[in-house]
Amino acid sequence: MSHILTLVFGAGVLGVLYGLAQTAVLMKAGTGNDKMREIAAAIQEGASAYLRRQYTTIGIVGAVILIAAYLLIGPYAAVGFLIGAVLSGAAGYAGMLISVRANVRTAQAASESLAKGLDLAFRSGAITGMFVAGGALAGVSGYFAVLVMHMGLEPTSREVVDGLVALGFGASLISIFARLGGGIFTKGADVGGDMVGKVEAGIPEDDPRNAATIADNVGDNVGDCAGMAADLFETYAVTTVATMVLAAIFFRGTEYVGTMMLLPLAICGICIVTSIIGSFFVRLGKKQNIMGALYQGLIVTGVLSVGAVWWVITTLVPASVTTGDGLVITPISLFYSGLVGLGVTAAIVVITEYYTGSNFRPVRSVANASVSGHGTNVIQGLAVSLESTALPALTIIVGIVASYQLAGLFGIAIATTTMLGVAGMIVALDAFGPVTDNAGGIAEMAGLPSEVRHSTDALDAVGNTTKAVTKGYAIGSAGLGALVLFAAYTSDLKYFSANPGDYPFFAGMGAVAFDLTNPYVVVGLLFGGLLPFLFGGMSMMAVGRAAESVVAEVRRQFRENPGIMTYEVKPEYGRAVDILTKAAIREMIVPSLLPVLSPIVLFVAILFLADKANAFAALGAMLMGVIVTGLFVAISMTSGGGAWDNAKKVIEEGFTDKNGVVHGKGSEAHKAAVTGDTVGDPYKDTSGPAVNPMIKITNIVALLLLAVLASGKIV
Amino acid sequence: MSHILTLVFGAGVLGVLYGLAQTAVLMKAGTGNDKMREIAAAIQEGASAYLRRQYTTIGIVGAVILIAAYLLIGPYAAVGFLIGAVLSGAAGYAGMLISVRANVRTAQAASESLAKGLDLAFRSGAITGMFVAGGALAGVSGYFAVLVMHMGLEPTSREVVDGLVALGFGASLISIFARLGGGIFTKGADVGGDMVGKVEAGIPEDDPRNAATIADNVGDNVGDCAGMAADLFETYAVTTVATMVLAAIFFRGTEYVGTMMLLPLAICGICIVTSIIGSFFVRLGKKQNIMGALYQGLIVTGVLSVGAVWWVITTLVPASVTTGDGLVITPISLFYSGLVGLGVTAAIVVITEYYTGSNFRPVRSVANASVSGHGTNVIQGLAVSLESTALPALTIIVGIVASYQLAGLFGIAIATTTMLGVAGMIVALDAFGPVTDNAGGIAEMAGLPSEVRHSTDALDAVGNTTKAVTKGYAIGSAGLGALVLFAAYTSDLKYFSANPGDYPFFAGMGAVAFDLTNPYVVVGLLFGGLLPFLFGGMSMMAVGRAAESVVAEVRRQFRENPGIMTYEVKPEYGRAVDILTKAAIREMIVPSLLPVLSPIVLFVAILFLADKANAFAALGAMLMGVIVTGLFVAISMTSGGGAWDNAKKVIEEGFTDKNGVVHGKGSEAHKAAVTGDTVGDPYKDTSGPAVNPMIKITNIVALLLLAVLASGKIV
Repeated sequence: MSHILTLVFGAGVLGVLYGLAQTAVLMKAGTGNDKMREIAAAIQEGASAYLRRQYTTIGIVGAVILIAAYLLIGPYAAVGFLIGAVLSGAAGYAGMLISVRANVRTAQAASESLAKGLDLAFRSGAITGMFVAGGALAGVSGYFAVLVMHMGLEPTSREVVDGLVALGFGASLISIFARLGGGIFTKGADVGGDMVGKVEAGIPEDDPRNAATIADNVGDNVGDCAGMAADLFETYAVTTVATMVLAAIFFRGTEYVGTMMLLPLAICGICIVTSIIGSFFVRLGKKQNIMGALYQGLIVTGVLSVGAVWWVITTLVPASVTTGDGLVITPISLFYSGLVGLGVTAAIVVITEYYTGSNFRPVRSVANASVSGHGTNVIQGLAVSLESTALPALTIIVGIVASYQLAGLFGIAIATTTMLGVAGMIVALDAFGPVTDNAGGIAEMAGLPSEVRHSTDALDAVGNTTKAVTKGYAIGSAGLGALVLFAAYTSDLKYFSANPGDYPFFAGMGAVAFDLTNPYVVVGLLFGGLLPFLFGGMSMMAVGRAAESVVAEVRRQFRENPGIMTYEVKPEYGRAVDILTKAAIREMIVPSLLPVLSPIVLFVAILFLADKANAFAALGAMLMGVIVTGLFVAISMTSGGGAWDNAKKVIEEGFTDKNGVVHGKGSEAHKAAVTGDTVGDPYKDTSGPAVNPMIKITNIVALLLLAVLASGKIV
Repeated sequence: MSHILTLVFGAGVLGVLYGLAQTAVLMKAGTGNDKMREIAAAIQEGASAYLRRQYTTIGIVGAVILIAAYLLIGPYAAVGFLIGAVLSGAAGYAGMLISVRANVRTAQAASESLAKGLDLAFRSGAITGMFVAGGALAGVSGYFAVLVMHMGLEPTSREVVDGLVALGFGASLISIFARLGGGIFTKGADVGGDMVGKVEAGIPEDDPRNAATIADNVGDNVGDCAGMAADLFETYAVTTVATMVLAAIFFRGTEYVGTMMLLPLAICGICIVTSIIGSFFVRLGKKQNIMGALYQGLIVTGVLSVGAVWWVITTLVPASVTTGDGLVITPISLFYSGLVGLGVTAAIVVITEYYTGSNFRPVRSVANASVSGHGTNVIQGLAVSLESTALPALTIIVGIVASYQLAGLFGIAIATTTMLGVAGMIVALDAFGPVTDNAGGIAEMAGLPSEVRHSTDALDAVGNTTKAVTKGYAIGSAGLGALVLFAAYTSDLKYFSANPGDYPFFAGMGAVAFDLTNPYVVVGLLFGGLLPFLFGGMSMMAVGRAAESVVAEVRRQFRENPGIMTYEVKPEYGRAVDILTKAAIREMIVPSLLPVLSPIVLFVAILFLADKANAFAALGAMLMGVIVTGLFVAISMTSGGGAWDNAKKVIEEGFTDKNGVVHGKGSEAHKAAVTGDTVGDPYKDTSGPAVNPMIKITNIVALLLLAVLASGKIV
């Protein structure tokens, strides 16, 4: 066991080393002229300043929770929480540090050729991807190794399980703040800047006269890059932990329980290797097809992973293992479950590309609807966003049924783990988006030739799709992983109530009925179901308020300094960054605490009104409720937003409607498309993606609530 | 028993007679000048033509299902289906007939005084309301009387239960087609007409030069009035039937089973009387407060209903009754359950008014956001729509917990029944909206003085809120009623599998686990959850296509007849009506069949992949899944749409933003608000309200599927 654990930890470290090596290559690339460097420096400064303040604020909340975890559960949970929080924060911070350096280099490379631009942008994405996957794997496997090998704890003991769950909670807590704070910052800047710049003053996007331009570029780095990295770190860590906990529960007392707990780590470890190999296959071909180049890397990773996962599973898993419930599982059935996970990933990539890619019906229908006006653009975009949930949901349904039939609940867990195994590659596909977006901004502000902007725009359009893909992938894994987390919750509960001597709170509670005929279960489903809607509403309003403060500031600068419009005076970029920093930090607190506190409130309320068993039933159902609506809310927002954004890009490139009329930049259709894009911004970059960590937090808080009640320290 | 049943049937007939008497009063009112009569005649003609075609199409689908019901279940089910379908259709048709006559009379009355306008408009609403409630009650109680008293069937026999459920299905089937077809027609006309008229040609709403004007007014009658009437008929009938079925199951074999089955009918009967009395209290006071006048009627109805329900329950129910599960229920606990139902109604009215009324934060925040542009208007509107789901959901949660603690599942059923008892009054509040909307249109087209338009606009703004209230009420009762329908499903299933001799399909099936730990239950939840989203997407796109066809037609007329703009030539109104009729009928078929076929598809798929028990588990969970997401989708769409509409109205009346600037008609803020209103149109009048019948159909099809499998005629 120690042998495998070392290898897994090594794979995690390998990912981080790959990132460091690529960083060295990246840093050697040219940074263009002085003007470009000056702009890039302003973005770097703003992004660092924002993240410092964001992490300081999160640090205060985190310190309170750290102390609570220590007092209410114990030292292993407190340390786990700290590791998860610090590493998730570090992944986000590193992602930001890379992307604020890659942006100017990509702008310079794109001025040489599209292929070079893609190469640099993807390289920076791959660095973030490997930091995320490698760091998460090293963190989980490292802490597990310390607890089991150095401290000599049983792998299935409460201390180890609570420690791992707390690690997941630490990661989740950081990630929701980072996703939401970064999301509010970036979209406040984007929406606010567009409202004054494009709509009122009639100047193009990223025009240097707009005081919000630097803030907009800062936002790409702290929201789309740092926020996303923290989120995927969390998804990766929580899913791995949940599968390990499930293995501990299912195989408790068997000789291979240790091996089965290592299986998810081993699968993730080998997939880091396949992702690294795949990353070398991203090369722009003769057809200059950017999406094709990215697919090449993804397909190589996928194909290699099939073989690698087969090798890991058949090597590690005995010819047949039996769960506590008597289900017999063979290595081959686990391998097929892994294939299901890869298949779900592939299907979600294809479906999301269909719904957000520039060449397919949905985006073109939104572009066509823009011809009739603002209203029809928004109606069609909303219709696409609602419709786009069906196929991903069906994919997840098929994934659940297939992997469950193959190897029961553990099969679902392995499918989810394998799906997340290739996260490094998926993050790489995503993280290059904000870099190219920034590169375009720098090119525009530095007055580079329009061909450069054309190249960065082409990269950016693909980035809109890959960003939607990553979000669909993260939320899809949450849907599949829901059963794993729920199973961990019910199994924990069963264990505690079966051992009332050790866990007196659970004595005489009776069986907990998670049956839909129990009204408290329905109450839990509805209460959980309302959270993503309320959270979505709150975060959209937060973006609106942040954008309004930007609008006021930019208007003030235009009014007080007429020289700005004539290029005589440089706007005060720093003021806009400051204002947004304050707004984003202030606005992220309440929505982020919603999923942390809701499970506790519901549990206490039903405990007071009914009894313990029904309180646990309602709490469990709440976890499912938050998934059932959260899945659809998140997918509809991220896909819909991507479709709106690319519909705008399609028109900017010159769109021929069904009557043969061509609409381009500045046309009425373009104005309508800009409205849709503005609406889609907070949809796809603030509210939608933050739903994923929200779901995870709700689930993990429920698991920790059980741990607190079991510890006997408060009741 | 026969005695009470006669009284209940009599109450239903009383409702219908009240409607007829009020119709006589209405018809005596003045119809204004020739021009007004001419316009009204065109609207009447268009509405009748549309409904004839719609019902012909539905008739074909209905005939197929009628034959299927006869062959697969039996003659009682077939007759029940026919009664439900015919009466639901008749309620819609009657609603349309009244409102196309009330519109011109209201325009004339409003030209005399606001009080007279309100009086006539509300009177016509009350007629529709009493036709709906009275007709539904007479239909259910009459068919029950025929089966039990004339045919001599046992009240709890399969024939009676299947007959009643089939009656509910007939009503549901009509109502989804009517809601959706009417919704597509009305919003296709509204959106399309606004796009060409207000936005392109710059002419005001309802301008006679717009070829879509008559179609827009026709739409109000066939969508908001006929569609809504069919929908509420269905909600009323299905809930009453479900409560009766639940009483038959819970009290099977006791001496008071007959009485308990009659209890929901008796509560509805007495509430028709209190609604009639309440309707006389709607009088405009000195303050000219329209909402206040309506509340007066509603409050009188509510207070009288408290006493009436107390009297009915204490008179009918023995001092203590015991369910099959051994739960002891007292009359007082059932009375308190009824109060919970009235309380939920009151809370939903207040919450919806808050979210859609012109004087509260949400609508004013949307108006404020319009000042920054189209994009921020839509963002704020979406944020409000998402947020507006939380309080209604919490209300339903509290309602479920309270009534369950009082009297178990039967308490929830009684709460839902009492909630729907006052449906006559609620429909009255709603149905006056489209009448005033039409009256405004007629006033504009006939060139009446602007004060008349001002009066009808004031009525219309309140109508936007009451329309949202009715939709919230209908979907709220669906949320509360979900448990009742689900309980009927599980109880039926338990009964069949306990008697495999009579029902061989259910032999050896084993227990069905509706437990959330069963992955097939999660699959069912997710599959059910995707239906409202997919349905919403499909119906929004249908409106978009219908609107586009209108845009093309109006543009063609403007182009080919330049005389239209100069008032020299009258546009061909009939062409627009024809085009929309065809579009609406074509577009309503597929989305309407989605909830009819989905339960069957899911059941067969899981039966094929797993086994009977899991197929039934997935099907049951699907019913809950469609409620959990449907509730939120429907509330967010209807409240959000109402908020957008009234934000536009607020600006039209001259809106002072937070910087003290006043924005009125024609301002940039107004244009942005028009965009929001356009988006809100299909949200609140097509997709959102159609979710309610969609949920009901899914549930009822599942119950009928059980009946088909139990009948042994196909398997």
